[in-house]
Amino acid sequence: MKTIRSVLAEAPLVWLLIAVPVAAGVHYAMPHAALLGFILACVAIIPLAGLLGHATEKLAARVGDAIGGFLNATLGNAAELIIAIVALRAGMLDIVKASITGSIIGNLLLVMGAAFLFGGLRHPIQTFATIGARAQVGMMALAAMAILVPSIVSAVDSAKFVAKSVNFSIVVSVILLGVYLLSLVFSLRTHVHLFSGGSTEAAEEEHGTPWSINLAVGVMLAVTVLIVWMSEILVATVEHASKALGLTNMFVGIVVVAVVGNAAEHSTAVIMAMRNRMEIALSVAVGSTTQIALFVAPLLVLLSLFIAPAPLSFAFPPVEIFLVLMATFVASILLVDGQSTWFTGVQLLAVYLVMAITVYGVPA
Amino acid sequence: MKTIRSVLAEAPLVWLLIAVPVAAGVHYAMPHAALLGFILACVAIIPLAGLLGHATEKLAARVGDAIGGFLNATLGNAAELIIAIVALRAGMLDIVKASITGSIIGNLLLVMGAAFLFGGLRHPIQTFATIGARAQVGMMALAAMAILVPSIVSAVDSAKFVAKSVNFSIVVSVILLGVYLLSLVFSLRTHVHLFSGGSTEAAEEEHGTPWSINLAVGVMLAVTVLIVWMSEILVATVEHASKALGLTNMFVGIVVVAVVGNAAEHSTAVIMAMRNRMEIALSVAVGSTTQIALFVAPLLVLLSLFIAPAPLSFAFPPVEIFLVLMATFVASILLVDGQSTWFTGVQLLAVYLVMAITVYGVPA
Amino acid sequence: MKTIRSVLAEAPLVWLLIAVPVAAGVHYAMPHAALLGFILACVAIIPLAGLLGHATEKLAARVGDAIGGFLNATLGNAAELIIAIVALRAGMLDIVKASITGSIIGNLLLVMGAAFLFGGLRHPIQTFATIGARAQVGMMALAAMAILVPSIVSAVDSAKFVAKSVNFSIVVSVILLGVYLLSLVFSLRTHVHLFSGGSTEAAEEEHGTPWSINLAVGVMLAVTVLIVWMSEILVATVEHASKALGLTNMFVGIVVVAVVGNAAEHSTAVIMAMRNRMEIALSVAVGSTTQIALFVAPLLVLLSLFIAPAPLSFAFPPVEIFLVLMATFVASILLVDGQSTWFTGVQLLAVYLVMAITVYGVPA
Repeated sequence: MKTIRSVLAEAPLVWLLIAVPVAAGVHYAMPHAALLGFILACVAIIPLAGLLGHATEKLAARVGDAIGGFLNATLGNAAELIIAIVALRAGMLDIVKASITGSIIGNLLLVMGAAFLFGGLRHPIQTFATIGARAQVGMMALAAMAILVPSIVSAVDSAKFVAKSVNFSIVVSVILLGVYLLSLVFSLRTHVHLFSGGSTEAAEEEHGTPWSINLAVGVMLAVTVLIVWMSEILVATVEHASKALGLTNMFVGIVVVAVVGNAAEHSTAVIMAMRNRMEIALSVAVGSTTQIALFVAPLLVLLSLFIAPAPLSFAFPPVEIFLVLMATFVASILLVDGQSTWFTGVQLLAVYLVMAITVYGVPA
Repeated sequence: MKTIRSVLAEAPLVWLLIAVPVAAGVHYAMPHAALLGFILACVAIIPLAGLLGHATEKLAARVGDAIGGFLNATLGNAAELIIAIVALRAGMLDIVKASITGSIIGNLLLVMGAAFLFGGLRHPIQTFATIGARAQVGMMALAAMAILVPSIVSAVDSAKFVAKSVNFSIVVSVILLGVYLLSLVFSLRTHVHLFSGGSTEAAEEEHGTPWSINLAVGVMLAVTVLIVWMSEILVATVEHASKALGLTNMFVGIVVVAVVGNAAEHSTAVIMAMRNRMEIALSVAVGSTTQIALFVAPLLVLLSLFIAPAPLSFAFPPVEIFLVLMATFVASILLVDGQSTWFTGVQLLAVYLVMAITVYGVPA
Repeated sequence: MKTIRSVLAEAPLVWLLIAVPVAAGVHYAMPHAALLGFILACVAIIPLAGLLGHATEKLAARVGDAIGGFLNATLGNAAELIIAIVALRAGMLDIVKASITGSIIGNLLLVMGAAFLFGGLRHPIQTFATIGARAQVGMMALAAMAILVPSIVSAVDSAKFVAKSVNFSIVVSVILLGVYLLSLVFSLRTHVHLFSGGSTEAAEEEHGTPWSINLAVGVMLAVTVLIVWMSEILVATVEHASKALGLTNMFVGIVVVAVVGNAAEHSTAVIMAMRNRMEIALSVAVGSTTQIALFVAPLLVLLSLFIAPAPLSFAFPPVEIFLVLMATFVASILLVDGQSTWFTGVQLLAVYLVMAITVYGVPA
């Protein structure tokens, strides 16, 4: 009991956990209140994702730099991965694709925009080391390209290409996962010093009381089970909720699911920016994007062969391709700079807002 | 009389004002000479736009920095706005859209290219502070994205999306105008020092003899009436002139109208570049682009609801989308640099030339 | 005999020249072994292209900086030009276009990626002067734009525009060649110092024993004849070879022909990167791209009017447009940086690999 209290004491937005039992109660007791169940499941995932990230960091702090870095890098988007896997099993390929798109544009525009805005309201001009930022942007751009190239070709020459695109998606996934592994070698082995900059210090500051390995692993397992459960409610209710709200699957995937899955990154990035630790804020936002593109997306493609009723391919809808392309372009222009103000944040948020409204307007 | 002479003495290209009465004479006396009337109206607008900008600066110099900055920012593209409003009332939506596209690519490629070329012929390497330039480029890129995202989606999923795009365009316009207001807060309030750099000094140098507020406002009103008049002749004759020259509306809007409307910026930017004041030259070219995208375009969309026979939407033709995208991309690459030579100018002008020829070749 | 031996002693990959007689033998003696003939002709061109470049440098070293620079700039891609001309005469327009696309993405991603990777394995972080790199990137971006704009418009409004696109392509070609001439004036006359940096020193180091003008011209002529011969075998066998391998013409043009034609640049760039001379490595890779876009491509368009059964236009297939656009975007992001590591190379190679696989999957 004391352990649970001490665990909860450090988790962000912990009071939202009350949504877990309520969501379950509503879902099973009132099967017709699908919209309410959907909203509650979304709300419940937010603190769970935060807690999962928190426990991962505690475990990483225990097991040494190299394995810790690997854990952080691999499980950083675990909540999104779980939601996507549950959706994949239910055959909702369009929502899975949309949530990948939404994670990318959400991290680059919404999370980074909010970080710049709230950081900039406290500090007139915020600077960040461009070398780290540029390395991240380069990786992000390349990851985006790798996902986009097949999609674009598919959009241009749709009819015939799609037929081949499952095998094709498998090969590309293997390449991306290979690049991801090499990126870990790069950032955890050969060029550690480029990335460790201020982040170790900050990481220590953040870690707070250390957890035992058992506690950390226990929390991770328990929270994972809860996220799977909430994701199943979310997936079971999403169709009804969409219809009730007059939303398309694409909008729900890009805006709702992605925002819910990235809420933890969101709050971390904003808090760090307000403390004027821009490197960490950026690394959370951009690093998460890269991870989605190089690790989560290809992993889902490969997993879909075994767990989904139909295989997932890299052929994204044209609208989503353009959104990712634009977001990457805008982010790469702004990060080259090494400086930000509150207005940089306003600009990014405005682009996100326009994109969200655009997606809202795209018919099913 | 003496006042008029002193006003005219400072205006650039003042002798072109002779085209005002000639254009009117030809238009009303020789209704069949539509092509001649069109050309004369175009020529007449060039010095009028310059004079309007000049009077705005004189007024701005009188009313203090904050309101003055606001005036300059808001009325800097007044001539283009007037032409567009007159065309809007006549229901020529395609020409209005084309002139917005043309202003953006014209400022980024033609005006900036000419500035780099003529500046570079005098000074082997010209440098400019990148911080201002980058802030401008970021704003420009974001503005372009905001306009492009809906257009692209519309181009991709045309059939159904267009139906919703009027309401959609209204919402996006309100967002863009909000960002524009915040950009004024940013540049005139919270971060004045980033922008005032060399420009106050130069502005003083440029202002010459101060005008009384009455004189400035009087000139502005008179010139505005004349621009409206010339715009009406221009709009009334444009269809016939296009046909006579074998040009499409798109070409006339993108190349002819945009060049005419931006002639004042053009000469200012080139003169400043030849004096090696690259910050001002860039700020004229890029600032004007941003203003078109964030202020003029959304204002026209909102105005169209009241004054146009049909509402204007943000759904630009695909060709125009790509031109804006390419121009933004090229400009953002070149401005990141902080250096220019005559060859940079040649490159920009070549891209403009290729674009103009491309537009010429696109069938109606 | 001694001369020949001394010439061969300096040429890279000289032993591959054995493929020249073997290719000829196979082609004429075994007309059914088209695939073998094709492969041998490809292999034979690799050392010939290297020898041609080598002889050009020797001649350039003899005739003084200005003319020498002009020769290097003009004949740097002579092998690709010869292959393209032979293919043009045979009416294989799609292969010519694909080989232009392939040269651009091959130089930007494959050659540069290999240079970064192998250089980075020896030197943890490699830096390069950004001013030269940026000038090159700007030029490359502009060149790419100039080629892309008409293609994109053509892709968007295909039906009617293509009809006009021959005249149109001629005009654009003349503009591009004009820009190319001005770029020579820029780099060889007005701004020599920006480019001469470390390269003269390195060039000297590279030149080795000087050749007489006669020897250099003699080698160039002899090698040119051999390249023409091998190109004719290559072109005569390419269709059969493609079918035998189940490849499309696009894949053969983009991947096979482009890799063969650029093999010399490839080895130079990698060797230079391993010696930590990044400026030269980049200038080979990016300079070659620029030359293809501004000189080789427009020259082929103009030549096609006289030597090809049908005129070549700038209307590239949409897939190729996007590949060039993406490659330019990625390269421009990475070069802005001024730093590279082995992982930068991995990223570029991964994008190239994904692109190659994508092209492989595009149906004929």
